[in-house]
Amino acid sequence: MTNDEVGDLVDRYRVVRSHTEELAAPFSAEDQTVQSMPDVSPMKWHRAHTTWFFETFVLGMADESHVPVDPTFSTLFNSYYVAVGPRYERAARGVISRPGSAEVGEYRRRVDEAMLALLAADDDPAIAEVTILGLNHEQQHQELMAMDIKHVLSRNPLVNRPGVIDWSPAPTSQESLQAFEGGLCQLGVDPATPFSFDNEGPQHQIFVAPFSLADRLVTNRRYLAFIDDGGYERPDLWLSDGWALAQAQGWEAPLYWERGASGWEEFTLLGRGGLDLERPVAHVSYYEADAFARWAEARLPTEAEWEVAVRALGATDDERHGTLHPTGVGDDHFGSLWQWTQSAYAPYPGFAPAAGAVGEYNGKFMINNQVLRGSACVTPPGHSRPSYRNFFNPGSRWMFSGIRLASGAS
Amino acid sequence: MTNDEVGDLVDRYRVVRSHTEELAAPFSAEDQTVQSMPDVSPMKWHRAHTTWFFETFVLGMADESHVPVDPTFSTLFNSYYVAVGPRYERAARGVISRPGSAEVGEYRRRVDEAMLALLAADDDPAIAEVTILGLNHEQQHQELMAMDIKHVLSRNPLVNRPGVIDWSPAPTSQESLQAFEGGLCQLGVDPATPFSFDNEGPQHQIFVAPFSLADRLVTNRRYLAFIDDGGYERPDLWLSDGWALAQAQGWEAPLYWERGASGWEEFTLLGRGGLDLERPVAHVSYYEADAFARWAEARLPTEAEWEVAVRALGATDDERHGTLHPTGVGDDHFGSLWQWTQSAYAPYPGFAPAAGAVGEYNGKFMINNQVLRGSACVTPPGHSRPSYRNFFNPGSRWMFSGIRLASGAS
Amino acid sequence: MTNDEVGDLVDRYRVVRSHTEELAAPFSAEDQTVQSMPDVSPMKWHRAHTTWFFETFVLGMADESHVPVDPTFSTLFNSYYVAVGPRYERAARGVISRPGSAEVGEYRRRVDEAMLALLAADDDPAIAEVTILGLNHEQQHQELMAMDIKHVLSRNPLVNRPGVIDWSPAPTSQESLQAFEGGLCQLGVDPATPFSFDNEGPQHQIFVAPFSLADRLVTNRRYLAFIDDGGYERPDLWLSDGWALAQAQGWEAPLYWERGASGWEEFTLLGRGGLDLERPVAHVSYYEADAFARWAEARLPTEAEWEVAVRALGATDDERHGTLHPTGVGDDHFGSLWQWTQSAYAPYPGFAPAAGAVGEYNGKFMINNQVLRGSACVTPPGHSRPSYRNFFNPGSRWMFSGIRLASGAS
Amino acid sequence: MTNDEVGDLVDRYRVVRSHTEELAAPFSAEDQTVQSMPDVSPMKWHRAHTTWFFETFVLGMADESHVPVDPTFSTLFNSYYVAVGPRYERAARGVISRPGSAEVGEYRRRVDEAMLALLAADDDPAIAEVTILGLNHEQQHQELMAMDIKHVLSRNPLVNRPGVIDWSPAPTSQESLQAFEGGLCQLGVDPATPFSFDNEGPQHQIFVAPFSLADRLVTNRRYLAFIDDGGYERPDLWLSDGWALAQAQGWEAPLYWERGASGWEEFTLLGRGGLDLERPVAHVSYYEADAFARWAEARLPTEAEWEVAVRALGATDDERHGTLHPTGVGDDHFGSLWQWTQSAYAPYPGFAPAAGAVGEYNGKFMINNQVLRGSACVTPPGHSRPSYRNFFNPGSRWMFSGIRLASGAS
Repeated sequence: MTNDEVGDLVDRYRVVRSHTEELAAPFSAEDQTVQSMPDVSPMKWHRAHTTWFFETFVLGMADESHVPVDPTFSTLFNSYYVAVGPRYERAARGVISRPGSAEVGEYRRRVDEAMLALLAADDDPAIAEVTILGLNHEQQHQELMAMDIKHVLSRNPLVNRPGVIDWSPAPTSQESLQAFEGGLCQLGVDPATPFSFDNEGPQHQIFVAPFSLADRLVTNRRYLAFIDDGGYERPDLWLSDGWALAQAQGWEAPLYWERGASGWEEFTLLGRGGLDLERPVAHVSYYEADAFARWAEARLPTEAEWEVAVRALGATDDERHGTLHPTGVGDDHFGSLWQWTQSAYAPYPGFAPAAGAVGEYNGKFMINNQVLRGSACVTPPGHSRPSYRNFFNPGSRWMFSGIRLASGAS
Repeated sequence: MTNDEVGDLVDRYRVVRSHTEELAAPFSAEDQTVQSMPDVSPMKWHRAHTTWFFETFVLGMADESHVPVDPTFSTLFNSYYVAVGPRYERAARGVISRPGSAEVGEYRRRVDEAMLALLAADDDPAIAEVTILGLNHEQQHQELMAMDIKHVLSRNPLVNRPGVIDWSPAPTSQESLQAFEGGLCQLGVDPATPFSFDNEGPQHQIFVAPFSLADRLVTNRRYLAFIDDGGYERPDLWLSDGWALAQAQGWEAPLYWERGASGWEEFTLLGRGGLDLERPVAHVSYYEADAFARWAEARLPTEAEWEVAVRALGATDDERHGTLHPTGVGDDHFGSLWQWTQSAYAPYPGFAPAAGAVGEYNGKFMINNQVLRGSACVTPPGHSRPSYRNFFNPGSRWMFSGIRLASGAS
Repeated sequence: MTNDEVGDLVDRYRVVRSHTEELAAPFSAEDQTVQSMPDVSPMKWHRAHTTWFFETFVLGMADESHVPVDPTFSTLFNSYYVAVGPRYERAARGVISRPGSAEVGEYRRRVDEAMLALLAADDDPAIAEVTILGLNHEQQHQELMAMDIKHVLSRNPLVNRPGVIDWSPAPTSQESLQAFEGGLCQLGVDPATPFSFDNEGPQHQIFVAPFSLADRLVTNRRYLAFIDDGGYERPDLWLSDGWALAQAQGWEAPLYWERGASGWEEFTLLGRGGLDLERPVAHVSYYEADAFARWAEARLPTEAEWEVAVRALGATDDERHGTLHPTGVGDDHFGSLWQWTQSAYAPYPGFAPAAGAVGEYNGKFMINNQVLRGSACVTPPGHSRPSYRNFFNPGSRWMFSGIRLASGAS
Repeated sequence: MTNDEVGDLVDRYRVVRSHTEELAAPFSAEDQTVQSMPDVSPMKWHRAHTTWFFETFVLGMADESHVPVDPTFSTLFNSYYVAVGPRYERAARGVISRPGSAEVGEYRRRVDEAMLALLAADDDPAIAEVTILGLNHEQQHQELMAMDIKHVLSRNPLVNRPGVIDWSPAPTSQESLQAFEGGLCQLGVDPATPFSFDNEGPQHQIFVAPFSLADRLVTNRRYLAFIDDGGYERPDLWLSDGWALAQAQGWEAPLYWERGASGWEEFTLLGRGGLDLERPVAHVSYYEADAFARWAEARLPTEAEWEVAVRALGATDDERHGTLHPTGVGDDHFGSLWQWTQSAYAPYPGFAPAAGAVGEYNGKFMINNQVLRGSACVTPPGHSRPSYRNFFNPGSRWMFSGIRLASGAS
């Protein structure tokens, strides 16, 4: 690496790592300890786990004699890297009171000190590569921190005064469909892209039939019409597993909606308030998105359609994200809400995971998940691409997920 | 319909309906009552449910004033047709002792009588169409009856003398890979095919990269090498959900294998006996098939690759199924074991389910399932096609599932 | 034993064993296979288990070289006798289709033949003793057969025509309280009693304060007043565990009650019919009995009070059981419904279980159960005594249990 | 009340309330937030709940217009007082991050201020009575705080340095049995006792047969002999429910024992260390205590025997608790470990719960629990009496429970 590249990486390291602590700052030690469901991790766990990643995969690689800050952290803050050693039971992360929030802060400081020293002293490209992976990994956890703390605080009857953070998608308006030609297209990340996750490639050919894609996300107003038309009471609109889950959990609306005295209310980190009908509907599962699309006589796009259209539109995750273009075309492909696709999360042709423990990253989740595309209002700046593949179980609702409709041969 | 067509349909009706009773004949009233896990249905339930299908969708359609043989049967023997009315809880089918096995036989006779009278008297194509659907539906349940009774009897310590039925795939030999060119191909059922399920179409274009596909299924011998190499103890070989399930259920081998005094044994309806190393490995989940393929440095095929290859080979489900061709090329694409593909079960572009209750048939299961292709030794004769799409949850093992490897860009 | 005694025992053996088969005769092979909840056993299991008892503990004791009719039966039909060997998982008894109902009948015939030969040939008092225990054991299972088949058939929507058996308590009338003096009393079985279970002794002294006991069981009419007064909606009336269970299972009335078009209905083996207000309320848990008593400003008796009162009254289980005396005093202590007491099931002072496997009989259940006294309309003739201690978990409802109130210092 | 009595109550209020905060002081905000199993409550919950008791039952009674410090606290910190209003789901107490530990401290200060003002100003005996009840209630929670935080920290791999608190029973030595005559005795609290819980009375007559009671608790040494003799592998020693639970949870030793490199270790709040063989065995369930007693050819005492013996011995909970008398007689009836009795927790004859919500206190738990007598090393000073009845589910192990043997007619 050149000195400039080293300098850039050091800067980027500082920025990303600081952003995590800024995100956590408004939340108390107690807020950061709670795990409100197995999918959620405590905020201090995220702060420690992302640090463990650098300690294990960068400091440990650069210096095999690296003495861990605390050997128990290897067990506590390993997540799914089975190859690296024993892990603490995921669903019991909320039982771990120690290290506390302040001690995690100290752990971060010590690892940062070592990392910054290493990056300044060493221009080994392998170190740079894993560091960059670690920073992207930390950005993913920044979004998880937002999703998770929202869920944690939503379980508490005191949440009508939780904070001053507004993580909501920007208002939008009624969508209309735009036609795309399809044909033999390229799918997957351009090899020239500076960084991407392994699951975004290899780039490959795919045949896409002509299709139409909505220019904006579905609004709360439209979704309310679905509810009012019995959307949650008509099994014919639902996938079988979705209907079973909705019945078992008593779904009547998206997560965080509640019936108030004068109509539907929504919980955000600003408190519980009236539902804003102009904002995109958020916190819906794949099952709800799919049922809504069927009710609307449309369907969800495939991930290929989504990527083809976004490339054609030249939509990017710039500063205008989540807003309307002067042209009147919605530009909420990025920065508003992740968009469910009808594509199961699967390897692209020729996919090969990275070697070693880091290679556990993505491939092992390629079952029972659906792909979401775009990015959301809680996605860190710069952490999105047309080829980015997010994925969640079809029943999950605590992420910032929305609906973009499609039609034509799917 | 012409008289000949009517005659053919009457004959086919007799053949399919008799085959069900022949399958059930060796099993006692008690055998036919048991539900050994929620996925399994009692054999007498299958016999009644398939009959209910004809009574509800054919007799009821032909004559709206049709008086049901027994009104409670509508609740008891409806399966997933939510639109038709209340259903009896699936997991509690084993609690239903009445109607008994003989009474179900009587129900079948009475509905057959009415059906045969109707088919002879009425040449309404709509009636023929639903009747043909009903017969294909009944053939699906014939295979389920075999899968289910095998599971029921496997739970009983007395099974070392369960019967005289040999439902096992034919022996095979070491596979080798055959190359296919791929390119822009057609996927899905040819519109000229006399009958197909809605999920097999519409036929559509798809781009397939060059690939190789094994000419034979993986044998027990090969699979044993995987086990002996620690296949069930190495998380790096497994999908994350698969590893979790295997640990939770203590998997050490395929379903129905047991460690005996002198090595592995396998339970079949002929009793418990030594494992035949030359037979294809059966009763594996998708997770096991996928882990085995990773271990073998190969992968599972996509369903498109499978169909393209089978059409190129001209493989068909003829009488030689499950055996080797004189040419030395395996012909176990059909009639031996269903073959897991890496394709999630999803609608083809332009898929639209049939109208009405019958339309609940397939579309509503298009999530959380993987496609299997081919057919098995328990599949009724004539109930397979190159376009046929079977599907199961990736953790299921009680169906007759096997492994065909692929390689090349997937 | 004298010849007469041997003859008596042979006769008694024939009578008790035949009675089991008479009880089972109206029920089909399918009815006898079903296990509708873990507490229930299939009827053919009861028929086989009671036979296994004689084969194992009598034939096996008399002749150590006795060859079991079928070695697998030892696993299948052992219940809780851990000392005797492996047992088949209790909750999975409904999965066992083989041996079938007819084969169990054959098993019974073969063991009876051997038993009758043994009893005629051998006057060993030890054999007589275990045989008598086996007959009392079989009578207990006769009652379980009635309880269990009622539960099995209640789960089936076809039950409005289940059979011709009337197992219901006789009608009664409004109870009144009778005073008893108490003082230093004897509790437990008189040593002169020909047979009793180990848990009925040793006889011992106990101090009982003055108390009153109702002369009749609580009727459906009275219990309905409790329901109408919000009995199932007032947590203050309930024990904490009872309230939790009632909420979790949605109790609104005793088991087998259902709201019909014109009021409460009750399921019996005669079918579903209007609730008979004059009959004693049946199929209540301890929690319901206790809550009712609190609502009625009374309490449940202790088992000591019950036994002291019954001895004072001279109530016996004669042919008039479950009816009213000419004197107007209720005589439903026996033969109508078991009566919950507030006494936890515990060993009497000096209790020692019998030696060997037979000693597992009662002592090991002396926790988490409440004592019920008396007997019920489904209790076999001659199978009750003032000292008899029945016991069930406080949440159980499928046995024939009723309520007798008490008051005064408890 | 006289001025002196008011002064005494004010002093006592200060002492008890301060003790709670002293107990909590060593534990971080995170430690105080965790709920490690449904039976455990977070430490800050205990601190708030005991405060809520005074606010609701004393301040609210004294002044009906009392404005709660925070209305949401009524939901969050109500425990089982169904009559007082909605409650927050018990098993989800660990999800409540707010109010935090410091805010709970503030809540305590504000309620204390109001309470001290009220007690100084008002000599209403009803207020004094409920205040005294509240103080005893708080002392019960002080013991729960110790039990609960021990369990919380035991789940954390970092616990080898948890703190500086030594909550362990004092060493003891081999027990011997002392004979007691029994006869007609008085059971229950002497009416002259200044304070007792409702469940300790009414005092009543009971007949007790002659018996012997051990003068000391069972040691780890003795218990280890039981383990080494296969105590956890012999179902004949166990109650049926106990055996099932032990198998389901994989019990091999008391809670907090772990096999270390050089033998058994035990977790305490001083860290994990070698098992002290001279200390009484702690953290055993009723099932283990009962199985041990059977193995030792003894039994557990009834609560009547325990109380009769303790009164005869004149044992009291003085400063020597948990130690040996100069006479050589053990005096560990109090202050070492609670002692399981074979008595189910049930109302004494004539028991009537207090009126109103406070009356929910004890009576509603009189099912499915066994009585423990004495007190433990974590019981607050002055919070024990010969008539005190503690109770837990027979499967519970996280409280400081031990074993005292008995023999003779039980």
